[in-house]
Amino acid sequence: MKIAIIGFGTVGQGVAELLVAKRAEIERKIGDFKVVAIADLTGSIWGDFKLENAIEFRRKTGRLPGGRSAREIAEEEDYDVMIEVTTTKLDESGIEYMRTALKKGASVITSNKSIAVDFQGLMKLAESNGARLMYEATVGGVMPIIRLLNSYLALCEILGVRGILNGTCNYILTRMEEEKLPYSQILSEAKEMGIAEANPKADVEGIDAGIKLVILANTIGIPARFEDIEIVGITDITPQAFAVAMQKGYTIRLIAEASRKSLRVSPRLVPLNSPLAIKGTMNAAMIRTDTAGDIFVAGRGAGKYETATAILSDLYELFRTG
Amino acid sequence: MKIAIIGFGTVGQGVAELLVAKRAEIERKIGDFKVVAIADLTGSIWGDFKLENAIEFRRKTGRLPGGRSAREIAEEEDYDVMIEVTTTKLDESGIEYMRTALKKGASVITSNKSIAVDFQGLMKLAESNGARLMYEATVGGVMPIIRLLNSYLALCEILGVRGILNGTCNYILTRMEEEKLPYSQILSEAKEMGIAEANPKADVEGIDAGIKLVILANTIGIPARFEDIEIVGITDITPQAFAVAMQKGYTIRLIAEASRKSLRVSPRLVPLNSPLAIKGTMNAAMIRTDTAGDIFVAGRGAGKYETATAILSDLYELFRTG
Repeated sequence: MKIAIIGFGTVGQGVAELLVAKRAEIERKIGDFKVVAIADLTGSIWGDFKLENAIEFRRKTGRLPGGRSAREIAEEEDYDVMIEVTTTKLDESGIEYMRTALKKGASVITSNKSIAVDFQGLMKLAESNGARLMYEATVGGVMPIIRLLNSYLALCEILGVRGILNGTCNYILTRMEEEKLPYSQILSEAKEMGIAEANPKADVEGIDAGIKLVILANTIGIPARFEDIEIVGITDITPQAFAVAMQKGYTIRLIAEASRKSLRVSPRLVPLNSPLAIKGTMNAAMIRTDTAGDIFVAGRGAGKYETATAILSDLYELFRTG
Repeated sequence: MKIAIIGFGTVGQGVAELLVAKRAEIERKIGDFKVVAIADLTGSIWGDFKLENAIEFRRKTGRLPGGRSAREIAEEEDYDVMIEVTTTKLDESGIEYMRTALKKGASVITSNKSIAVDFQGLMKLAESNGARLMYEATVGGVMPIIRLLNSYLALCEILGVRGILNGTCNYILTRMEEEKLPYSQILSEAKEMGIAEANPKADVEGIDAGIKLVILANTIGIPARFEDIEIVGITDITPQAFAVAMQKGYTIRLIAEASRKSLRVSPRLVPLNSPLAIKGTMNAAMIRTDTAGDIFVAGRGAGKYETATAILSDLYELFRTG
């Protein structure tokens, strides 16, 4: 199996490190593999190279040695699978690399939630070229939601999914709940700790969760687009709101919900004893089914090795199911 | 695909009803199928019959029309998959039917946790005959724990699993926590409500959870047998113990734990904000991994259609992965 890695920042390097660390296990369970090309904005490498050396070079110099662009690598190299991990933001250049791969009949594994922009188009492109697009890492990191919906529950009707899909928001809400401090103060501290970004707009306004909800909705057969999602963020939540909620046995969480009736991201009252009252930066989801009742899952929504693990899980799935 | 159903009580009938209700979906995703034989202690049916009619006959008369035994059906009929759902107790006759099927090269899907008695032997028998033994429904009902361990996390090292694997115990502990009543009183009410059995020994003494833990341990590569599990049940827990725990922010749950260091079922202190402090009859598990952190899952541990759904999920998995 020949793998091209497009994007070699934190996640791409995490994937490469796990491919090195778990080589024996992967070869035992999947078969031989070789990373035949890597490209990111700093440069590229292709042909006969050792993956260990490429990781080391990138870490020491901050770049990749060769000069061909990601686009050239995607178009010209020969690979069976593209691991597309260029960004965790909305950035459509990644989609172009995916399209290039899929048109060649190569499968794509991605952590790039930009697939929400053209989910149906990408899936059709994959299907018509006999390739697959795998995207477990796009929603909830290593929380196993996509696999559960697409495979474990494949013979169920999914009545709806309610999830906590943004770790930054959940961290802020958890601290507001526990410390009774205002939103702005917790946000400042979260920025200092690196949990919230300098510009946290996409997180706190619910946009990030909304994009992931588009992917979840499509996964359960609702062909939603971003503009179909009703979105309210967490910026207006006050300690008083928490106090009132707590008195009645509730807390407040930013819930993303997809069902035939509802496509929305909004702060919602959640009973304190509900699994969705989960604390910290974990992502979580409740899947409502016709014959299996409710199934609940939670896991780390982000992180270098967590995201890389979700990508390796897709790799295993791809080669196990052909 | 030719299916034989061995065991036609609640779970077996649930499977048959779902096979009827979801026929179109199953045929679209897996392919044509036909139930070619059904057997239980009341009788059997085989050859050219309509599944709907067999369900109806069994429901109306309390038996199956034919006289061949389950053993004869298992040995003599021609099938690709045996769905073995004879019991939810420890009963080794079910294992004999499984061995018969596996020796013929037919795969087995079971909800029978008796596989704990000879897990390694059955797996070897399956492998040496080119068949598979699927057992999602044996641990935690439709909670997707086996699939996660065997497939989603196949490239992870599993450092340990801690789970709530017995809904009856969790129901009793939850009510003791909430109502501050003694164990014996809650148990009596649980019996009246049909949540606990008339003879609840296997549940409340931790034996049921211990048997499931054997299956989990083997699934993560620890070749444990029942006698390796250290077991303490919930019969000695007092309202005072809950009161002390609650003061410190803990509750008490019957935790089954499998790791290289520990194989035990015992009442443990669980922080009130831990997902394992889950209430009611749900089953739950926390999976600790090397590269994905902790992954948490919960779902209904029992129930006619829930268990049947886990079996259909195995059926999908079997035919998807060959």
